[in-house]
Amino acid sequence: MKTMAEELFKEFREHSVSEFFRKNAAMLGYTGKIRSLTTIIHEGVTNAIDAAEDSGVLPKIFVTIKRVNEGPEHFRVVVEDNASGIPEGFISNVFGKMLAGTKLHRHMQSRGQQGIGVSGSVMFGQITSGRPATVTTSTGNGEIVRANVMIDVDRNEGKVTNVEKFKGKWRGTRVEVEVKDVTYMRSRYGPFNYLRMTAIANPHVHITFAEPDGTLTILEPATDEVPERPKPMPLHPWGIMSDDLLVLAKRTKGRTVASFLATELSRVSKRKAEEVVKLSGVDENKKPAELTWEEAERIVSAFKQVKLMAPPTAGLRPIGAADIENGLRQILKPEFTYAVTRPPKVYRGGLPFIVEAGVAYGGNAGKSVEGKGEEVGAEAGMELIRFANRAPLIFDQGGCAITSAARSTDWRRYGVDISTAPLTLFVNVVSAYVPYTSAGKQSIAEEPEVFNEIRSAIMDAARELRRFLYRKIRVKEQQERAGVFEQYLPVIARKAASLAGAKEPDIKPLLKKVAGVESGKES
Amino acid sequence: MKTMAEELFKEFREHSVSEFFRKNAAMLGYTGKIRSLTTIIHEGVTNAIDAAEDSGVLPKIFVTIKRVNEGPEHFRVVVEDNASGIPEGFISNVFGKMLAGTKLHRHMQSRGQQGIGVSGSVMFGQITSGRPATVTTSTGNGEIVRANVMIDVDRNEGKVTNVEKFKGKWRGTRVEVEVKDVTYMRSRYGPFNYLRMTAIANPHVHITFAEPDGTLTILEPATDEVPERPKPMPLHPWGIMSDDLLVLAKRTKGRTVASFLATELSRVSKRKAEEVVKLSGVDENKKPAELTWEEAERIVSAFKQVKLMAPPTAGLRPIGAADIENGLRQILKPEFTYAVTRPPKVYRGGLPFIVEAGVAYGGNAGKSVEGKGEEVGAEAGMELIRFANRAPLIFDQGGCAITSAARSTDWRRYGVDISTAPLTLFVNVVSAYVPYTSAGKQSIAEEPEVFNEIRSAIMDAARELRRFLYRKIRVKEQQERAGVFEQYLPVIARKAASLAGAKEPDIKPLLKKVAGVESGKES
Repeated sequence: MKTMAEELFKEFREHSVSEFFRKNAAMLGYTGKIRSLTTIIHEGVTNAIDAAEDSGVLPKIFVTIKRVNEGPEHFRVVVEDNASGIPEGFISNVFGKMLAGTKLHRHMQSRGQQGIGVSGSVMFGQITSGRPATVTTSTGNGEIVRANVMIDVDRNEGKVTNVEKFKGKWRGTRVEVEVKDVTYMRSRYGPFNYLRMTAIANPHVHITFAEPDGTLTILEPATDEVPERPKPMPLHPWGIMSDDLLVLAKRTKGRTVASFLATELSRVSKRKAEEVVKLSGVDENKKPAELTWEEAERIVSAFKQVKLMAPPTAGLRPIGAADIENGLRQILKPEFTYAVTRPPKVYRGGLPFIVEAGVAYGGNAGKSVEGKGEEVGAEAGMELIRFANRAPLIFDQGGCAITSAARSTDWRRYGVDISTAPLTLFVNVVSAYVPYTSAGKQSIAEEPEVFNEIRSAIMDAARELRRFLYRKIRVKEQQERAGVFEQYLPVIARKAASLAGAKEPDIKPLLKKVAGVESGKES
Repeated sequence: MKTMAEELFKEFREHSVSEFFRKNAAMLGYTGKIRSLTTIIHEGVTNAIDAAEDSGVLPKIFVTIKRVNEGPEHFRVVVEDNASGIPEGFISNVFGKMLAGTKLHRHMQSRGQQGIGVSGSVMFGQITSGRPATVTTSTGNGEIVRANVMIDVDRNEGKVTNVEKFKGKWRGTRVEVEVKDVTYMRSRYGPFNYLRMTAIANPHVHITFAEPDGTLTILEPATDEVPERPKPMPLHPWGIMSDDLLVLAKRTKGRTVASFLATELSRVSKRKAEEVVKLSGVDENKKPAELTWEEAERIVSAFKQVKLMAPPTAGLRPIGAADIENGLRQILKPEFTYAVTRPPKVYRGGLPFIVEAGVAYGGNAGKSVEGKGEEVGAEAGMELIRFANRAPLIFDQGGCAITSAARSTDWRRYGVDISTAPLTLFVNVVSAYVPYTSAGKQSIAEEPEVFNEIRSAIMDAARELRRFLYRKIRVKEQQERAGVFEQYLPVIARKAASLAGAKEPDIKPLLKKVAGVESGKES
């Protein structure tokens, strides 16, 4: 007789990661007609900028969204970059396999990192339109390859068809995805605002955007310097768990435990490594791959007993205060702007990160893009724009540490009424290990150190804003004061002179003195 | 000469889903010391209740959190159920392989669904403590199996070791996970509150909880009826995309297109299927597996031209208003409670769901569990408790459609000041397709139909609350009014009588009449 368990477990199945995300597309950001389209743009553009920077060129990105005749919710999305191109043999895995990529295992700051994003948009295109993605690419070797890619969801594998090759002098990659059941709108959550935010945080990127109605927008770079590339930063012993150590040990080229530690971890010299191995009591000639958990634990705790330099942060690449201000000025034309790049900090013991914050006041600040044809709309009050490694985060605002840090700030202390102030608050979190809450990467988890650092950055910026606002009020008061004297002093002088039978005195020097400014002249 | 692309793509790698979630444990809910421990409890308990219900028994769950000697942040977590047990051959895949399970492909309401949760907690235990999980299980065949399970993260495979077997009459499963770097606290986000919320939404479940200090809490069931099992509900043609149709077509047992449609979709009779196939112009003898995308599209649009019954909702299992009220009363001892189960609705055309809302006012409502030893703490104001298919959602509150629906409600209209009212608001979303925003399943995406329905349910409950609050105010006013007359009428009567030299009249009938209630007697 069968037990109930045997009966129930007949239904037991395995699934591929593609099938999982096909069923749970919302986890990748494919939820809602506007958001889904923006997510495709987001995946294409972050990949394009990462790739161009990896190739050491100034990113030049072309984005086109075209309506396809068949229906109002049917589009063709094209993203083109000027990066290194993709060798033909990798096309299938880059676009058709999830959890595959060049960025997953390097300890280096980048926009994308999981090897899911672009395959996700190929999949979403495929399940809504039934059409493969078309990839055109050249590594600059004189040959251009064009091919169609679909995902075999059951196997998590790319299927490449219709490969064509032709001669041509060009280097870069162009991805076209056909997608249905999505909507194009110039709202806060639409592609236009996404690209505008990208431009603010990436003043070195040139973006050309063609909207479905043919409107062409060129977001010019505010600088023409290629930012220095982030550098790989090996894990630091303070941020490491025993399990991390064992994973590294399996792959290291180091032959002894000490040489393994010195090779794979940062801030660990050969001498320091030997000291730690001795302290831990682990056999110094043991092969790293043979370390046990218990030995790894002893090594991790031995590291806590020796002096080490703090984790390296030189590999991180913040935007920099000057460029944040440039970006905000270029796009928002504000009256006042100020930005700060905080010094590096670490969370969970050894994971380094940097927070930057900026404010823009007046001009188009505080207003998001709305309505066709206008550059900006009429929305009032503070606008919070969030970034992680320069990539805009425009969804899942409610669950993000940046949002809660901004909300927890007492803005009245800084003279700001956030419901009416023409204010844009900018925050960028930079790290090789941004703690995203979801595979859609739109929201940062509330790690206490990260949260506190975001708060500090916001307060730094808010203090400068307060200074500006007070100066503005003082100038206005002085102008008013000057106005009063200017209005009445001449009358009094005239009357007094006429009463005294004297000549009317020159009161201009007096006016200047009383008003404390020459503003009377300007008004 | 190598192109730059060839150089860059040398770094291209594939990764397993376990490795992905090992690196991004925050996406599964493993972030923060308190939350990580609660997530382990959550995964164990939802699985245990699902399994018991699948086996048709009243769930009896034992949860133990023990301190392990080695350190203050080192615990052993045990969850035991009285379900069907697990056949020995499945132990490895159930606990050691992500994206494997019995629930992934059935179109049926359940708490868990992805086949990630329990493997995730085995992995988190393993990477923090280095220890395997221990599984003890019996299918009730007289033999009990105990084994250790670890995950081979690189391969996404379970490794079973130390298998022991012994005789014994018992059926169920007991999972023990050892975990480090977590904290036990009786806070809003801790295991105690999680279990209390589970008890509210599952009044048929018996929970025994032993805390690290040995405190034993028994959450008694408020009912002893096994809820009817949810039923599988095939997809309805209105909620289907061409891609879904092709996926179903590959696996169907139907031999013709018409029999395929009638077998795999709900509300599609043989006759209706034939009508649709004719309308679509697809060859009726075609094998389902050979359908093209274009034919699938024609079938999907043909379905829109025929009359169909609305999607079936009989398979959904809400808690029911009476049991929600029971649960709230049992745990919160409120003055007033009211709950509503709304009629089924669909989102995205054809995905059925039900929303339930309840309010509890007074007693321990509006206060979350805080502080050792007390049952509840002193937190003031409205407490929102969210559920999906009866499983508590306690994290990622900010990004959840339930939270935004509750926030968008104008509580003053219902006479409620949410910053002070002793109010607990309960919301449960029931569906085979809950649109979670993340693999951690703590937050529901803002699908417009779902959001609106949550709002309506909240307003239904809030209206009843308003009636109660007004009645309360009226009673209080009447009591005050009665109090005034009661105080002065006798004096007036006495004085008047003495002035008139008459006998003091019996004013009780008058008092009754004036006060309009007999409340005077009670006070």
